Amino acid sequence: MTAPQNLTRAACAARDAADPLAPLREQFDLPAGVNYLDGNSLGVLPRATAARVQDVVTQEWGQGLIRSWNSAGWIDLPRRVGDKIGRLVGAAPGELVVADSTSVNLFKVLSAAARIAQANDPARRVIVSERSNFPTDLYIAESVAAQHGMVLELHEIDAIPARLAQAADVAVLMLTQVNYRSGRMADMATVTAQAHAAGALMLWDLAHSAGAVPVDLNGANADFAVGCGYKYLNGGPGAPAFCWAHPRHADRFWQPLSGWMGHAAPFVFEPGYRPAPGMQRYLCGTPQVIGMSALECGVNTVLAAEPLGGMAALRAKSVALSELFIALVRQELAHSGLSIHTPLDPAQRGSQVSLGVPADGSVDGYAVMQALIARGVIGDYRAGDGTAAEPHLLRFGFTPLYTRFVDVFDAIQTLADVLASGEWREARFMAKAAVT
Amino acid sequence: MTAPQNLTRAACAARDAADPLAPLREQFDLPAGVNYLDGNSLGVLPRATAARVQDVVTQEWGQGLIRSWNSAGWIDLPRRVGDKIGRLVGAAPGELVVADSTSVNLFKVLSAAARIAQANDPARRVIVSERSNFPTDLYIAESVAAQHGMVLELHEIDAIPARLAQAADVAVLMLTQVNYRSGRMADMATVTAQAHAAGALMLWDLAHSAGAVPVDLNGANADFAVGCGYKYLNGGPGAPAFCWAHPRHADRFWQPLSGWMGHAAPFVFEPGYRPAPGMQRYLCGTPQVIGMSALECGVNTVLAAEPLGGMAALRAKSVALSELFIALVRQELAHSGLSIHTPLDPAQRGSQVSLGVPADGSVDGYAVMQALIARGVIGDYRAGDGTAAEPHLLRFGFTPLYTRFVDVFDAIQTLADVLASGEWREARFMAKAAVT
Repeated sequence: MTAPQNLTRAACAARDAADPLAPLREQFDLPAGVNYLDGNSLGVLPRATAARVQDVVTQEWGQGLIRSWNSAGWIDLPRRVGDKIGRLVGAAPGELVVADSTSVNLFKVLSAAARIAQANDPARRVIVSERSNFPTDLYIAESVAAQHGMVLELHEIDAIPARLAQAADVAVLMLTQVNYRSGRMADMATVTAQAHAAGALMLWDLAHSAGAVPVDLNGANADFAVGCGYKYLNGGPGAPAFCWAHPRHADRFWQPLSGWMGHAAPFVFEPGYRPAPGMQRYLCGTPQVIGMSALECGVNTVLAAEPLGGMAALRAKSVALSELFIALVRQELAHSGLSIHTPLDPAQRGSQVSLGVPADGSVDGYAVMQALIARGVIGDYRAGDGTAAEPHLLRFGFTPLYTRFVDVFDAIQTLADVLASGEWREARFMAKAAVT
Repeated sequence: MTAPQNLTRAACAARDAADPLAPLREQFDLPAGVNYLDGNSLGVLPRATAARVQDVVTQEWGQGLIRSWNSAGWIDLPRRVGDKIGRLVGAAPGELVVADSTSVNLFKVLSAAARIAQANDPARRVIVSERSNFPTDLYIAESVAAQHGMVLELHEIDAIPARLAQAADVAVLMLTQVNYRSGRMADMATVTAQAHAAGALMLWDLAHSAGAVPVDLNGANADFAVGCGYKYLNGGPGAPAFCWAHPRHADRFWQPLSGWMGHAAPFVFEPGYRPAPGMQRYLCGTPQVIGMSALECGVNTVLAAEPLGGMAALRAKSVALSELFIALVRQELAHSGLSIHTPLDPAQRGSQVSLGVPADGSVDGYAVMQALIARGVIGDYRAGDGTAAEPHLLRFGFTPLYTRFVDVFDAIQTLADVLASGEWREARFMAKAAVT
């Protein structure tokens, strides 16, 4: 079969050559021989990070010691890095702080949301979320619901508007904007408006949004948000996370993780808790200095796109990459049995495409991904229940800062090879399938 | 005045020369010209850390990328480092995990303790702690108490046994074993037995104990514990913290920060939370890989003492250092107005000595500490209410891994000089006093 003009490797290389964002890739240290399409799980290493971390360790800590809390600005890290992330998600300076993990931050803001909802209307006792939301969000919500005498209700995403309209009992709608399995993206302004029309508060998890797609928390009039530092923000494994509250909520109540860094005067060492004004009260323990410093380097790689059009330009490239991927799947893998499990409308898609393996079990998705990784193409595998509705998935993430059009082309070629050759059936790939 | 034979610098140098633990100091990169007596606030940089962190960043993350969760053992870090810390505090393998911050971990274990106490006897509704416990512990306890319909009661440490005996209403006794202000150390076995005799659970904060004094959590039959990674464990600024539950409690209920890493099968991605067996359920979000790797290097510096007698040998040296410090205060600073605010009985003392400034306000402790730091002697300052009972304090911590007898001698000489010269009255030291 002859490929259409724009679906050849040469055409992809030409697009890379003409791409004004292409120089951003120089910000990263990418391993040789690896085609990395898993930045939606763990972003790659920025070139600046190793030197910065080394400086924090050997100079700021090693030489400055305790003095560096002030002299090196350690104490300001949660807010300084938070303000930088704020520029990517439509939060004003001082509105967003970096701290803890996504799960811990979700506990803080969901607890606050639950209390606010209860204060507004005690009859609202339901937290609604998506059945296939990332599990840690559901686990935390289960806990917060139990603590507040609420219930957590899970629905398919398309059933949520009807559920909101059904009764005035929903306290909080909690969604991850881009679903980790399907890559489906919600329209933040529309869904937030639906939640508000139903009298519910709106909490967004931006794990797969921040640094990947344009987000405007204030513009959408959202209530709360959390997000992850180690995916599209390139902060490193287990990087600190972030949280945001709309200013109308930030000063209300105090969140339950009332550690000293959220106190109005942490270094006065008074025995009673007085929450700091604004978002500062969402801090808890001592800042993770090394991790936050690495995260700052990662966030800087995204901010480096600002002179080139910023998130809008990154988004345009991301859509072009995923459109190319989908077109190549259709061209090269039409008879593979793999299905496209991500919305075909780019407006409903984040920065990843997930391929479903056949429900008949003829392809072992785990083994296919292992065989791809052995060939240097790194995506990841997420098991489903194996049905056509919730298939086992091969996930491929596109990070426009460093993913090239030729990377997309090469990944599809390799995937086609792996399927055609049947090499995924080799014992070394199959053997571990049971571990997943 | 002629110094006694053993209180001369030469005598101190001789003690260092004869100290079998002296080689342990070679594990650290100490800045030139600094006499660091603040390891109770932030431990110093181990020599191994910079290279290890660099390897984690450039190789494990940069080259291994997502694969390193398995191939580099990232996923096992909370337990692997936890087991190492366990050797220092009397916890068996698998009983102690590294995660989050001390404040967040305290929230977890105190919430669990409150639930267990309520299940055992709903009439027990009081959490008791020490008035001068480290504030973040009190802030977290205030929150946990409010969430569980309990009250937090603060008492002077000496009044606590009587309070326990007074009524059968205490659910949990929560203490930091070594008080951050006074350096006073509680006998863990005795106090735990008192709490149990009163029907209360016993929760210990080991922030100033782990790596500083021998601790035997199982031997003392304690119920819960938390501790800090960046003080005597030398884990670096904002290092991850740890938590422990006695095995009789670890499997009961689930703690409220029910994130995916505490799930029985985190990578099955099921929507409902099922807590992992044992201490694993006290994990929450994704492990802080870089910070935990640095912490492991720090913990290794303490474990390096094992062939030399371990914590018992470190403790003996720590006591010798603080005894020397106190003797030198008496010899050199008898007329300074400074008081010794730390118990004179070494059995009641952690690894620090705090000096109280005169209640008459004739000495500005903040300015004195600034002047000391300007001379390279780094301790720290903690404000009190200024009375003789709760004076403003100059704190000096002794870390037997790297503090030498001559360091103690030199610190006292410098302090005597700073006081005698009155140089602390200079504007550059006084100016910032209002900031504290």
